[in-house]
Amino acid sequence: MSELTPLHAIGEFALINRLKKKVHTAQASTVLGIGDDAAILAPAAGQEVVVTTDLLVEGIHFDLSFCPLRHLGYKAVAVNVSDVAAMNATPTQIVVGLAAPSRFTVEAVEELYEGMRLACEAYGVDLVGGDTTSSRAGLVIAVTALGQVAAGQAVRRSGGQPTDILCVSGDLGGAYLGLQVLEREKQVFLADPEAQPELDNYEYVVQRQLRPEARLDIIHELRELGVTPTSMIDISDGLASEVMHLCAASGTGARLFSEFIPMANPTLEAAAEFNLDPITCALNGGEDYELLFTIPVADHAKIKNHPDITVIGHLTEQSDAVNLIAKGGQAVPLQAQGWTAF
Amino acid sequence: MSELTPLHAIGEFALINRLKKKVHTAQASTVLGIGDDAAILAPAAGQEVVVTTDLLVEGIHFDLSFCPLRHLGYKAVAVNVSDVAAMNATPTQIVVGLAAPSRFTVEAVEELYEGMRLACEAYGVDLVGGDTTSSRAGLVIAVTALGQVAAGQAVRRSGGQPTDILCVSGDLGGAYLGLQVLEREKQVFLADPEAQPELDNYEYVVQRQLRPEARLDIIHELRELGVTPTSMIDISDGLASEVMHLCAASGTGARLFSEFIPMANPTLEAAAEFNLDPITCALNGGEDYELLFTIPVADHAKIKNHPDITVIGHLTEQSDAVNLIAKGGQAVPLQAQGWTAF
Repeated sequence: MSELTPLHAIGEFALINRLKKKVHTAQASTVLGIGDDAAILAPAAGQEVVVTTDLLVEGIHFDLSFCPLRHLGYKAVAVNVSDVAAMNATPTQIVVGLAAPSRFTVEAVEELYEGMRLACEAYGVDLVGGDTTSSRAGLVIAVTALGQVAAGQAVRRSGGQPTDILCVSGDLGGAYLGLQVLEREKQVFLADPEAQPELDNYEYVVQRQLRPEARLDIIHELRELGVTPTSMIDISDGLASEVMHLCAASGTGARLFSEFIPMANPTLEAAAEFNLDPITCALNGGEDYELLFTIPVADHAKIKNHPDITVIGHLTEQSDAVNLIAKGGQAVPLQAQGWTAF
Repeated sequence: MSELTPLHAIGEFALINRLKKKVHTAQASTVLGIGDDAAILAPAAGQEVVVTTDLLVEGIHFDLSFCPLRHLGYKAVAVNVSDVAAMNATPTQIVVGLAAPSRFTVEAVEELYEGMRLACEAYGVDLVGGDTTSSRAGLVIAVTALGQVAAGQAVRRSGGQPTDILCVSGDLGGAYLGLQVLEREKQVFLADPEAQPELDNYEYVVQRQLRPEARLDIIHELRELGVTPTSMIDISDGLASEVMHLCAASGTGARLFSEFIPMANPTLEAAAEFNLDPITCALNGGEDYELLFTIPVADHAKIKNHPDITVIGHLTEQSDAVNLIAKGGQAVPLQAQGWTAF
């Protein structure tokens, strides 16, 4: 049996020293990482810096009864990298604030950081600083990500033009159905702690929930295809809410075709099993971390054969509002249910 | 009677819109502030970027029963600006993560942001982004601050040389005694809710605790005096712990003279009343947010008449260890009690 070390037994400085040993910096722009009052970065000449921050709060964003700490660490980084990617930027550094209950062990915190380290490696990001402290209640993870983009090349939500094509990466709705599966298994477990979780048939949707990937690959591929989106946003709160944000910022309406919304087979199967409308899951489920972006009609030919980009509609004049077009052609004004944090 | 709005009544997006209206950006390097997936910054040519993050957690770092929200907002910004200053950098932007219990009202969150806005104004910093979410337990504030410094001019903890003079700004121990006063008044109030708090005689120490200032002024003045510290750290955990950090990073020892440690009269009076050794309060109390730095002996003449900089000792060879020299000349090896977060 391995022995576990409670956090209070080693204290903050010793914990930081333990975590620091596993962190290595690789970015050219990292001058100084962990260990001083602040990290020092030297952005490359001609680059702008983007910065974004996200909080993950226990009991709100994750449930430790079914969320492995390593996946949680990975996700905390990925969701911030996703925001950087949505600016058309390349992530470079993160800083991490962690408030952990003293019931946590050093080994648990190390497992969380191992997930962050794996994500940093996957996305080519340096962990350059942070803050660790105690929490009277649950675990809180605050990640701030920095990225770089050539000056003037950042893509905002506001650049969409009427007639632009509306595209989405990957497929939607999976993360929400993964959450339904995990919550059902939790109830089964609570009723009968001897029960084994039945997750084998839900691998895809569970992974979409527990370990989403930021679509940095799409950013790189669009660059290779010579396509710069006119506007972009990442899908964290559900497609409906993100389309509404993008249209509000761009001063446009949109027509979104429900039959074009990309859904993976395991997502459709899980939706059927849970008696949920898959389109609703995609529109309002959230946490898919795919990219929603617009491109000029003239660029359509460049992306139409991309296996992981789907055209789901187009922008319109603002006066046309944001409409979901059902299979029969009927237009329904879109309601952003989104995910309300309070 | 004014009506208060519970957070859940307006939701996250409406809250962000309300907060956003009061935020204006002024920094030349802020290209895009709140409202997109990330903020966009354009650091000036030849500048490096510093980044630091700090969490403030209810029940650990602050007690809402005696900490006004406006002061708390101010402090959350100031403690991060203090870290930027400790790198010899000028703060430029912050992003703010906020997890608030749903018992909070919109007005309470606005009061917190008003404090942050005042601090941003005082330090010339733009609030460029953030994340707001719910919390099952207490309030958590995660601030990340960015700053700029001419390439190569950042001051690290590690640059101290044996024989360098050890200096501190302002005075120490006040914040800790302010906390003692506030906690005593809280106990009085809990025992008798009719009792009025008696804080009039403790204005100085209470303010040191509730609304510390980052010593950005010292950074500017040192520049005007033509002095670049060889090493620097801000005093958040107590002088003892910070001297130990600085010496460990610089590979030196130090001699610290207890009679030179600057203490304000109200701090000395409060210490006497609480039967506390004032030197212990300065060494281990923490939260003073003054700057501890080293300069070459040759620069001593430049700072010796500065009313707010005190020479408290000097660095030595590492083999001499870190010693506190008592009034009688007796050397006592310093113990970093610091503040243990767990």
